[in-house]
Amino acid sequence: MNILLIGAQGTLGRAVAEELGPRHTLITAGRNSGDLRIDLTDRDSIAAALARAGQLDAVISAAGNVAFGGLLELTPEQWEIGLRDKLMGQVNLALLAAPLLADGGSITLTTGVLAEDPIRYGASATLVNAGIEGFVRAAALELPRGVRINAVSPGVLQESMPGYAPYFRGFEAVPAARAALGFSRSVEGAQTGQVYRIA
Amino acid sequence: MNILLIGAQGTLGRAVAEELGPRHTLITAGRNSGDLRIDLTDRDSIAAALARAGQLDAVISAAGNVAFGGLLELTPEQWEIGLRDKLMGQVNLALLAAPLLADGGSITLTTGVLAEDPIRYGASATLVNAGIEGFVRAAALELPRGVRINAVSPGVLQESMPGYAPYFRGFEAVPAARAALGFSRSVEGAQTGQVYRIA
Ligand SMILES: NC(=O)c1ccc[n+]([C@@H]2O[C@H](COP(=O)([O-])OP(=O)(O)OC[C@H]3O[C@@H](n4cnc5c(N)ncnc54)[C@H](OP(=O)(O)O)[C@@H]3O)[C@@H](O)[C@H]2O)c1
Ligand SMILES: NC(=O)c1ccc[n+]([C@@H]2O[C@H](COP(=O)([O-])OP(=O)(O)OC[C@H]3O[C@@H](n4cnc5c(N)ncnc54)[C@H](OP(=O)(O)O)[C@@H]3O)[C@@H](O)[C@H]2O)c1
Repeated sequence: MNILLIGAQGTLGRAVAEELGPRHTLITAGRNSGDLRIDLTDRDSIAAALARAGQLDAVISAAGNVAFGGLLELTPEQWEIGLRDKLMGQVNLALLAAPLLADGGSITLTTGVLAEDPIRYGASATLVNAGIEGFVRAAALELPRGVRINAVSPGVLQESMPGYAPYFRGFEAVPAARAALGFSRSVEGAQTGQVYRIA
Repeated sequence: MNILLIGAQGTLGRAVAEELGPRHTLITAGRNSGDLRIDLTDRDSIAAALARAGQLDAVISAAGNVAFGGLLELTPEQWEIGLRDKLMGQVNLALLAAPLLADGGSITLTTGVLAEDPIRYGASATLVNAGIEGFVRAAALELPRGVRINAVSPGVLQESMPGYAPYFRGFEAVPAARAALGFSRSVEGAQTGQVYRIA
């Protein structure tokens, strides 16, 4: 398959590339890295990258930013980051990719364990992740030509624990290589409207 | 208790007013109706209404707009309606009310059955409702002084079926009076971080 992998240089994206690269043709993308430049917060940038990617069987987002901070200290601009970047960035990627994907192709987005297991400072992340999961459930009903959509919800990654541990005490960290299996299930399986929780 | 009820003139809000009015002092609000004028899409308008409401024990939102339409036909502006109005309108209401509420006071937001049971044309509603539920789960961890937050998720209302039936075939409609019980549980109970699903 021809697969566009956004965020391929990231902690999660590198593991997805290792899992899928041996079996498929990957086109990697990021804001400042990869075969193609793309900024998920900009619809024109998404459309341009999709046009340059050529015929695709799958689009994967292993990207998306959210601001962390105290519930009553997050500024309106910080709430906007999660809405514009991780939430609507991935939604717009799905909407713009859907008409271009091969019949039966797939879209795979990234959410995360905070969707159902909130932590202090994580209200925007929980809102955004839950919203992505809702979008995936609903979009699966209406995508044309057998195009599928799923999300992968990894627990906190082992590779990220050096920075994240103080916020995730008691959470069992997941190797990025295991989280990557969720992307394999989505791209290489047949299901749609699923959230693969990698705990 | 002194309760600010936003959307008090709506199908759901009228039932909430009937349930809580006999036991509490209600201050009603809406864009074009009620004791106070408020527009949830405008933070200044929310702040002004809260200031004029005086000391409150509870804030209820039975309001919030979302656009319905085909997944790939919804315009960026239509996706924005759900984000600005029902989602961030209610989030901003909660954030602005939290510091003003009495100790142990409560915030109650409205989501809906589409959060977990999507329908055609409802992708924005599912995204928005799921996001609200995520926000409520997370915000409950960080609200100060025992202030609580919950959401009520009604099924499609019997009173709305004349217009909504074609989109909700097979859904068992709920009387608004029963949905109003969820608001009573949130305001008059002791729980926080809950989603009361009225099916
Ligand atoms: N790390 C964890 O423990 C963990 C756990 C659960 C979920 N997640 C989620 O997994 C995703 C990836 O996390 P990560 O830790 O791997 O992040 P990361 O190491 O910071 O990598 C993010 C990648 O995405 C690209 N990127 C970032 N913003 C972008 C944008 N607006 N448009 C296009 N590309 C963008 C970056 O490329 P450039 O730098 O070139 O832009 C980079 O390759 C995020 O959605 C995160 O919330 C992470
Ligand atoms: N009806 C259903 O079957 C159903 C089922 C599940 C969930 N819900 C949810 O329940 C909520 C209320 O639905 P409904 O059917 O009762 O709606 P409705 O009959 O249209 O009433 C909405 C009420 O909210 C006020 N309002 C609307 N937008 C507002 C805004 N931006 N700022 C402040 N006030 C605003 C309106 O007052 P003004 O006209 O004066 O502005 C009106 O009083 C919505 O969030 C809806 O999604 C409804």
